[in-house]
Amino acid sequence: MPEPDFIAGLANARRAADSLLVVGIDPDPARLPPVLAGRTDGLFEFCRAIVDATADLVCAFKPQIAYFAAERAEAELEALIDHIHARHPRVPVILDAKRGDIGSTSQQYAREAFERYRADAVTVNPYMGFDAVEPYLEYPGRGVFLLCRTSNPGAADLQNLACDGEALYERVARLACGKWNASGRLGLVVGATAPDELARVRALVGPMPLLVPGIGAQGGDVERTVRAGLSRPDDALLLNSSRAILYAGAGEDFAQAARRAAAATRDQINRAVARRSEND
Amino acid sequence: MPEPDFIAGLANARRAADSLLVVGIDPDPARLPPVLAGRTDGLFEFCRAIVDATADLVCAFKPQIAYFAAERAEAELEALIDHIHARHPRVPVILDAKRGDIGSTSQQYAREAFERYRADAVTVNPYMGFDAVEPYLEYPGRGVFLLCRTSNPGAADLQNLACDGEALYERVARLACGKWNASGRLGLVVGATAPDELARVRALVGPMPLLVPGIGAQGGDVERTVRAGLSRPDDALLLNSSRAILYAGAGEDFAQAARRAAAATRDQINRAVARRSEND
Repeated sequence: MPEPDFIAGLANARRAADSLLVVGIDPDPARLPPVLAGRTDGLFEFCRAIVDATADLVCAFKPQIAYFAAERAEAELEALIDHIHARHPRVPVILDAKRGDIGSTSQQYAREAFERYRADAVTVNPYMGFDAVEPYLEYPGRGVFLLCRTSNPGAADLQNLACDGEALYERVARLACGKWNASGRLGLVVGATAPDELARVRALVGPMPLLVPGIGAQGGDVERTVRAGLSRPDDALLLNSSRAILYAGAGEDFAQAARRAAAATRDQINRAVARRSEND
Repeated sequence: MPEPDFIAGLANARRAADSLLVVGIDPDPARLPPVLAGRTDGLFEFCRAIVDATADLVCAFKPQIAYFAAERAEAELEALIDHIHARHPRVPVILDAKRGDIGSTSQQYAREAFERYRADAVTVNPYMGFDAVEPYLEYPGRGVFLLCRTSNPGAADLQNLACDGEALYERVARLACGKWNASGRLGLVVGATAPDELARVRALVGPMPLLVPGIGAQGGDVERTVRAGLSRPDDALLLNSSRAILYAGAGEDFAQAARRAAAATRDQINRAVARRSEND
């Protein structure tokens, strides 16, 4: 049996769900629906219900470890990812952790992500250079998304600085699709809030996976994001929405509300993809 | 009663122990002394014994969260930091986590570091810009060490790029001692393996705390590090050693071996400080 391969798994999931949508799982305990608030298993049940209601609409799930860590809910995160692998084996799990450390410490973080949490891919911060990234790539078949141009307002503080004639984020993109990518399992995080930078990154890196947060609550525009992020049909593009889907409804039917929001977002993305193709 | 203040606490601890030494707590389960290996409380007891044997010799402890997370040992990390606060209340705890994320997620990481783990300070990655750092600084009195020029071989991949006429790490240093530091509670991480860069950072930032990993197992030279990192007697300088102290002995007297290694390192640092002063 071949090793699991994150890049192939992602393409399969995209085809099966006809979807570029990633649902980000950022469970804020202050925003749990009243029907779950106060229950000791509320956080897990919230996430599980969202996952089960949206799994056929997504190409990946992206749990954000910070929300679990702040709540002492590591066991719930393990259980959630186990649940995804067991019930929705087609759907890859990207653990959003944004770690990055010296090699011996990155080995421990890679154990955390891939052995403890059984993630298929993980987000990593590139500031410390390639030896901080390498330990993750030693796990066969697993993917790594390096932060490139992030979606937050302060992203430009460093990422848009002109470095030896190009922006820092462009340098990261060139390294990630060049000498850092012998494994072929690197991708990049580029925010939907910066469509010009997204188009620039796509032009630099070719079809490599771009994980694009920032549509939904952060205000990124789907149409512009698709135009910028998809230059050819086979480009790997993952559009993440977290809060706009998780908190689409606060009633007892919160999971169905999330499903409706996810379906609407997937369809909106697909319409933008179709228009993108027509214009080519 | 005044709020706890990390900068003042650090200065007090330095004076009380006559020490610039930080002991980094990176408990590798494969390297536990045989007397503890296999015990369910082995990881905690190893760390507790090292802490109790060295607390009067250090100006801070720096637990590395990755080693605990890889072992599902979050409860042990909480217990260890509680133990330090209870038994060694003079000694600040710097949680080495190197997180960094968009503001709403950084709020969760700040809760993790300061509410769950009760750390006095935390290390943070600056790549995402100031709004990724700000949530930590909203906790009164707590400190933040931003990665600036790290100690690993790949550090120069991005950090030494020339950005608008200065190296990226210099830009981070100038931001950290300038407009990012309204709180007065920022410090920087600068590796002992790059003494020229350390001297340059000290020249840029004045007396701000510099946390310097890389002496000991990583090979940084104490004499050169002190010359580079201490330009005036009041400069806040913290020299971290982890593995060379934790694993100084493998016998039943491992904690006493760690104490001897810590004392020798502290004294070596102090001799270098004395020579530095004589030469001024």
